[in-house]
Amino acid sequence: MSLKFKNAKRIEGLDSNVWIEFTQLAADPTVVNLGQGLPDIAPPVYVKEALSKVAATDSLNQYTRGFGHPSLVKALSCLYEKFYQNQINPNQEILVTVGAYGSLFNAIQGLIDEGDEVILTVPSYDCYEPMVRMAGGTPVFVPLRSKPVDGKKWSSSEWTLDPQELASKFNSKTKAIILNTPHNPLGKVYTREELHVIADLCIQHDTLCISDEVYEWLVYPGKKHLKIATFPGMWERTITVGSAGKTFSVTGWKLGWSIGPKHLIKHLQTVQQNSIYTCPTPLQEALAQALWIDIKRMDAPECYFNSLPRELEVKRDRMVRLLESVGLRPIVPDGGYFIIADVSLLDADLSDMENSNEPYDYKFVKWMTKNKKLSAIPVSAFCNAELKTQFEKFVRFCFIKKDTTLDAAEEIIKTWSSQKS
Amino acid sequence: MSLKFKNAKRIEGLDSNVWIEFTQLAADPTVVNLGQGLPDIAPPVYVKEALSKVAATDSLNQYTRGFGHPSLVKALSCLYEKFYQNQINPNQEILVTVGAYGSLFNAIQGLIDEGDEVILTVPSYDCYEPMVRMAGGTPVFVPLRSKPVDGKKWSSSEWTLDPQELASKFNSKTKAIILNTPHNPLGKVYTREELHVIADLCIQHDTLCISDEVYEWLVYPGKKHLKIATFPGMWERTITVGSAGKTFSVTGWKLGWSIGPKHLIKHLQTVQQNSIYTCPTPLQEALAQALWIDIKRMDAPECYFNSLPRELEVKRDRMVRLLESVGLRPIVPDGGYFIIADVSLLDADLSDMENSNEPYDYKFVKWMTKNKKLSAIPVSAFCNAELKTQFEKFVRFCFIKKDTTLDAAEEIIKTWSSQKS
Repeated sequence: MSLKFKNAKRIEGLDSNVWIEFTQLAADPTVVNLGQGLPDIAPPVYVKEALSKVAATDSLNQYTRGFGHPSLVKALSCLYEKFYQNQINPNQEILVTVGAYGSLFNAIQGLIDEGDEVILTVPSYDCYEPMVRMAGGTPVFVPLRSKPVDGKKWSSSEWTLDPQELASKFNSKTKAIILNTPHNPLGKVYTREELHVIADLCIQHDTLCISDEVYEWLVYPGKKHLKIATFPGMWERTITVGSAGKTFSVTGWKLGWSIGPKHLIKHLQTVQQNSIYTCPTPLQEALAQALWIDIKRMDAPECYFNSLPRELEVKRDRMVRLLESVGLRPIVPDGGYFIIADVSLLDADLSDMENSNEPYDYKFVKWMTKNKKLSAIPVSAFCNAELKTQFEKFVRFCFIKKDTTLDAAEEIIKTWSSQKS
Repeated sequence: MSLKFKNAKRIEGLDSNVWIEFTQLAADPTVVNLGQGLPDIAPPVYVKEALSKVAATDSLNQYTRGFGHPSLVKALSCLYEKFYQNQINPNQEILVTVGAYGSLFNAIQGLIDEGDEVILTVPSYDCYEPMVRMAGGTPVFVPLRSKPVDGKKWSSSEWTLDPQELASKFNSKTKAIILNTPHNPLGKVYTREELHVIADLCIQHDTLCISDEVYEWLVYPGKKHLKIATFPGMWERTITVGSAGKTFSVTGWKLGWSIGPKHLIKHLQTVQQNSIYTCPTPLQEALAQALWIDIKRMDAPECYFNSLPRELEVKRDRMVRLLESVGLRPIVPDGGYFIIADVSLLDADLSDMENSNEPYDYKFVKWMTKNKKLSAIPVSAFCNAELKTQFEKFVRFCFIKKDTTLDAAEEIIKTWSSQKS
């Protein structure tokens, strides 16, 4: 085959992807899919209706402003001004992107050069590492470690970064740290003290912070989502990433946004104008309309930003009880809609896969999907090669699902467990 | 300001963009906008209705397959099998992208390495050059030149590449040529003979061809759109780019596609899974439904692929007459929905802009937008720095516009011309 058919070096080795592999597996309609973070609950009626109506308007089917549809950046500016100390310039401090993925990509391509180091926690969302590598950057990994939790419930808040260990990763080559709070897959919500440690290190080492906050509204009682960009000295060095898909349970809309100072956002804009140019107009206009509805009732219980976490808390607690009832010890998430558990106690005959070099959790999930018709996501997918073995007994279950879906999962897990005993 | 706030080198100097600059100018609602390729005619009713209906289905608001929604890649495969000699594998030979822009970006990032040369015609669509530069590639320019056209109409077909000059641009570093037919902004539709010259050179020098065919359906009587990928030896080295926005007059949907052999498409897929992951589901499903309607009536006059060019031909001819009536010599396009003309004969007082270093056409369009309330796009935006002066007397007018919009443009141009005499 011609040498000219070869991939560019920047994507060498970046072709495997857990979502593509495991989503294909779970495509079997008889499988109960607790894998990908894909809500099967209905999105809010006004969100869907907004899109239906917008689609009928001719001009809203044509190109809009490249860096964000005017009505959408205005709505986002209004929404987030409530959380930042200052006004947010809708045209210069906000960029609308193809999902949070697009925001992360624009930030990394716009700011990371070959040889730059970028600090990532382990585990962390799986796209960070290949995105950094594609930009020629060097990921530097720092593990989240759990304190011992004898007897009591295992909460995601037990998982922390060691401040000394974190500090040891910063040096003159460090360009950025990628933070994720609430954290996927752990469900950890970083505390004020934890964020202060990170902020102080960023300022001391003159480092950027890319803060992925897509689950910002999905925080359970007793915890509060905090934005590191609002900490002293951090606005000027932070890009905060949000997501329409997570905010309104419409992951298929693929709209996200970056918020930050003009001197950083402008670089993300340059990447956008040379990669996809603009995001779809009908989705942006519909999102703006939906946001205004909830912006006007932010403190009301029926505001979706308040009602969705209430709805999810019940599902989270149900998942905890279910996993505990079969002898597993789930890590109870403080935020987000995933729960992870060590599944090595569940009986799985992986002998067919003995020759596979994959981590235990990959084999386990493939086996479970095929034999138990239940799918999940292996947690080692969120780990660098070196630390994979520390997490390969964990799998991640998504619980933003209808009760009937959770009923089906419960049936599968309970039957499976009873067959073992 | 901190050094860490600086852009990554890959985007150095790539921050200016003609669309962003001139779209802002034309945002004034009193301006008649013949600038950006933005249809103000109504998109087909069944296209808008498909989106309205899809939006109401919960599951179609969630993530779909990353490389293309299953029903959409199936429809595209069925549509294009009519034009290619072989079946097209919907999962391995098609990638759905964020507009044609996203296809071009994925192809260039996936295949072009630092030091690779990429041949571009001048003029050519303005994103090709910065996309190649962002990938570290070196654009190599070859001009389209017009034959003398004493007296007779000036057709876009008079503009050709000189085969010797084109051949001289190929060497061992040449990784790809980017072809665009029908051509934007010239409206040129490459003939079989012209494509053979290009194909032979690609094969002889073992070079890829990225063929941007977004205006593939918009070809006027007497000309025929040909796909270079169907030429002998070319399928294996060609990526063909298409666009929903151009196909159905819904530029705001930002959906496009790449078609090519698995050994090339897989590299584009790798870029996509590390940049935006997937395209919006509701738009993909609605597009699939719309495509099926027209696939089933491809030979019927009411098929949109046939009816839109008929509708546009009338508008093209009207623009030709209008521009000729005020003494200009437009280049009559054989395809696409743009017409370019040398506007230096129109009286424009650019003395306010004497100190500007911009090309004549940039100043002219800014002056015209402000003083005549008519906007267009400067053709030098489609040229590399060296050849800009050869095209700076030309501006591009978009004619996929309602009759009332063209009436308004006619009024402006005729009044302007009469004031001169």
